[in-house]
Amino acid sequence: MRDTMKLFMEPESVAIIGATRKNGPGTYNLVENMLRFGYRGKVFPVNPQADEILGLRAYSSIRDIGQAVDLTVINLPRDLVLKGIRECAAVGVRAVIVVGQGFADADKTGQTLQSEMVSIAKESGMRILGPNTLGVLNAFHPFTTSFMPLSREAAPVGVICQSGIFFVGAGRFSGMMGKGIDVGNACDIGFNEALSYLGDDPDTRVIAIHMEGLSHGREFVALAARVSRKKPVVIFKTGRSEAGARAAASHSGTIAGSYRVYQAALTQAGCTLITEDSKMRDAVRALLLLPPMRGNRVAVITVTGAGGIITTDALERYGLTLASLSSKTLAPVSELSPPWMPLGNPLDIWPAVMKHGMQKVYPPALKALLDDPAVDAVLCINVALNLPDYAFLDVSEALNQAVSGDKPVVVWLYGENSQGIGEKIEKEGKIIPFQTLEGAAWALSALRERQAYLEKISGS
Amino acid sequence: MRDTMKLFMEPESVAIIGATRKNGPGTYNLVENMLRFGYRGKVFPVNPQADEILGLRAYSSIRDIGQAVDLTVINLPRDLVLKGIRECAAVGVRAVIVVGQGFADADKTGQTLQSEMVSIAKESGMRILGPNTLGVLNAFHPFTTSFMPLSREAAPVGVICQSGIFFVGAGRFSGMMGKGIDVGNACDIGFNEALSYLGDDPDTRVIAIHMEGLSHGREFVALAARVSRKKPVVIFKTGRSEAGARAAASHSGTIAGSYRVYQAALTQAGCTLITEDSKMRDAVRALLLLPPMRGNRVAVITVTGAGGIITTDALERYGLTLASLSSKTLAPVSELSPPWMPLGNPLDIWPAVMKHGMQKVYPPALKALLDDPAVDAVLCINVALNLPDYAFLDVSEALNQAVSGDKPVVVWLYGENSQGIGEKIEKEGKIIPFQTLEGAAWALSALRERQAYLEKISGS
Repeated sequence: MRDTMKLFMEPESVAIIGATRKNGPGTYNLVENMLRFGYRGKVFPVNPQADEILGLRAYSSIRDIGQAVDLTVINLPRDLVLKGIRECAAVGVRAVIVVGQGFADADKTGQTLQSEMVSIAKESGMRILGPNTLGVLNAFHPFTTSFMPLSREAAPVGVICQSGIFFVGAGRFSGMMGKGIDVGNACDIGFNEALSYLGDDPDTRVIAIHMEGLSHGREFVALAARVSRKKPVVIFKTGRSEAGARAAASHSGTIAGSYRVYQAALTQAGCTLITEDSKMRDAVRALLLLPPMRGNRVAVITVTGAGGIITTDALERYGLTLASLSSKTLAPVSELSPPWMPLGNPLDIWPAVMKHGMQKVYPPALKALLDDPAVDAVLCINVALNLPDYAFLDVSEALNQAVSGDKPVVVWLYGENSQGIGEKIEKEGKIIPFQTLEGAAWALSALRERQAYLEKISGS
Repeated sequence: MRDTMKLFMEPESVAIIGATRKNGPGTYNLVENMLRFGYRGKVFPVNPQADEILGLRAYSSIRDIGQAVDLTVINLPRDLVLKGIRECAAVGVRAVIVVGQGFADADKTGQTLQSEMVSIAKESGMRILGPNTLGVLNAFHPFTTSFMPLSREAAPVGVICQSGIFFVGAGRFSGMMGKGIDVGNACDIGFNEALSYLGDDPDTRVIAIHMEGLSHGREFVALAARVSRKKPVVIFKTGRSEAGARAAASHSGTIAGSYRVYQAALTQAGCTLITEDSKMRDAVRALLLLPPMRGNRVAVITVTGAGGIITTDALERYGLTLASLSSKTLAPVSELSPPWMPLGNPLDIWPAVMKHGMQKVYPPALKALLDDPAVDAVLCINVALNLPDYAFLDVSEALNQAVSGDKPVVVWLYGENSQGIGEKIEKEGKIIPFQTLEGAAWALSALRERQAYLEKISGS
């Protein structure tokens, strides 16, 4: 018998109870989205009013399909859901996604409906994902139950969330997403099942979690500790404020408070905890793309003293320190700088650049920093003018060539072509450009914390 | 006699001692940049080796010009600067910008050179901006002394800084810049003179300050209190950490510590203090473009419950609260929502949108929030798909039409077309889209603090 989570994530056949006959934009037709996403398994739309949906034979009930399906999606108004659940139980369906809202996220009636749904499932051995969910997304074995159109990118980032915003708005949060599990109200399948699946999933290298409430917290902490030995786990817990917790109770019907009890334990378990929406993307990219940071000593190479100072403030805020640079390390820059120029860390190369040009200064300076055993990571600050005849200031190629993958290198650009040059750097996948110096410094600290955790557990 | 700062910012004639004969990219020729920027006053390049520079007659010394100039720029290696300063003093120059580095930002010799420079200036009544500066930028009376190419945008934002990064990288910091004064090492002209000028300047509606060190702190606080009655003053103090303060000492040669003494006083004086690089742009845009926020009660309108919760956390973190929405205010949404949908603040309109479409729900919902006297600002969360046939979800026009300018409205978009739709909204100039929910919430809090200050001083 196949593993339950595989039935949800990689079904070979799927039935949709409540498949709509309408299609096109605004109909939120999930059969249409599923096919558009590239699903190649068998699809059985169930709709007693239809003979055919999008060229597929439609069935008047799940019973009529006449064969077992891996997964059944129920997309009905809440008053009809229990009937659908019962029919599924009767034919021995093992995995069900309940899409609709109006359950523990709504009123007393909804809470009762949700409890009954769970009772029926328990009795029959059926598992439920949802309700109040977009369901799943799998870009590797192309499949989704999302009624919102999503693009497909086989990225090694797995997302567990309690809202479709993390599917539709992946760019704002995890940045990329190859697999996604929206646990919704988490009436049955919850964070533990989802994390266990993604923890073992060979396609997934980083796991990003959005969590409103946490039940089975003790088990979750133990599981997170096990998974985080193998791959980074980033957790964005929301509903942290009093008002936010109240709002969470009426959004996914879960208790936000219990997480607080486990907060310290999750940090100890090697998870990266974030509290601001922008930080999920920064953490995921750093943990996915950068090599380990083996100490907390950062070298800053900059064409602006002021940028170096802003960075220094941010690094200190996040528990990182400035590496002490030896005169050997400083030599390539000091040879090219005016004699009066005070050189240190941050390493301000601007006077040398003014005299000798960017391309003569930057590559040897960066190489010396990367070669210095007292340096654990390098943060580069550079200018990005939007003038074709100033391309000689563009160090993206020098940067990409210098970086061997031993030590993490991050970059922050300023000037009107920051985005263009940033994309050139990012495309190589060795160095990450950040939007803010604060974000770059924080991401390095997340990277360092992760490595410190791995060192601690391998030493013990 | 013209006001000193006008000589720097709006000179009718300018001499450049140390004008280079080379031009084109990489020569950092400031005469070339000045002309490219559109300066229409008289330009006198001084270079004993040249007869002509960029078609302009070159002079072998400032004496040879034979007429008084408003401003003289000295662009010489540090060993030659004192000689230049003395020549300027001899012919009665009143305003000098010293561009080069190597003074209090460098070594003992540099410190001595800077002191002597100041002594000569004091004796002769000459004022110095710099050293270690890009000088000034004025997009209204087109003029710049920057040796880095800059684009010209007559934006009502004035910048005072201690680094060219705030000129070249304005997009990362103040977002826009119509006037700029880089005080560099601030050996003579400092924050007080610059703030006084921009405070009285009719072209400037918001002032953004980057500060490494502060001398004459007491006077600065008093001046800031006076200026902030008329226009917002945003201050980004760097070198706050111990290591950062050390770095600041060797960058602009100033003492970072003294600022701390004045920190509380500056908040009390109505300034907006920021500590992270991304927040300058958020503060400037909000203070410039949005109407006053007359209380701290925010309504959140959202198509995603999870987004509402993230926002709620952030609002609470920054001292704002969720407005209590009356049933009258909720009516337009409750009429269109399923009966089980719990409605409140955040106001989740998604179930109504699923049933009736975005365009039927959004405009009346937003209007009701804006009309509610218990609401001081509205934060909108919406989806931005990158599919032409999903344009019916785009509410940018509805948003722009609904907003009357009475109350601040900010928006956060998610989905692959966030940038495109954000630009459409921003173009109208009534609503600001933010990159992060955190930034949107913080910007509202900055707006509220500013208004609370204005109410306090007008009441007293």
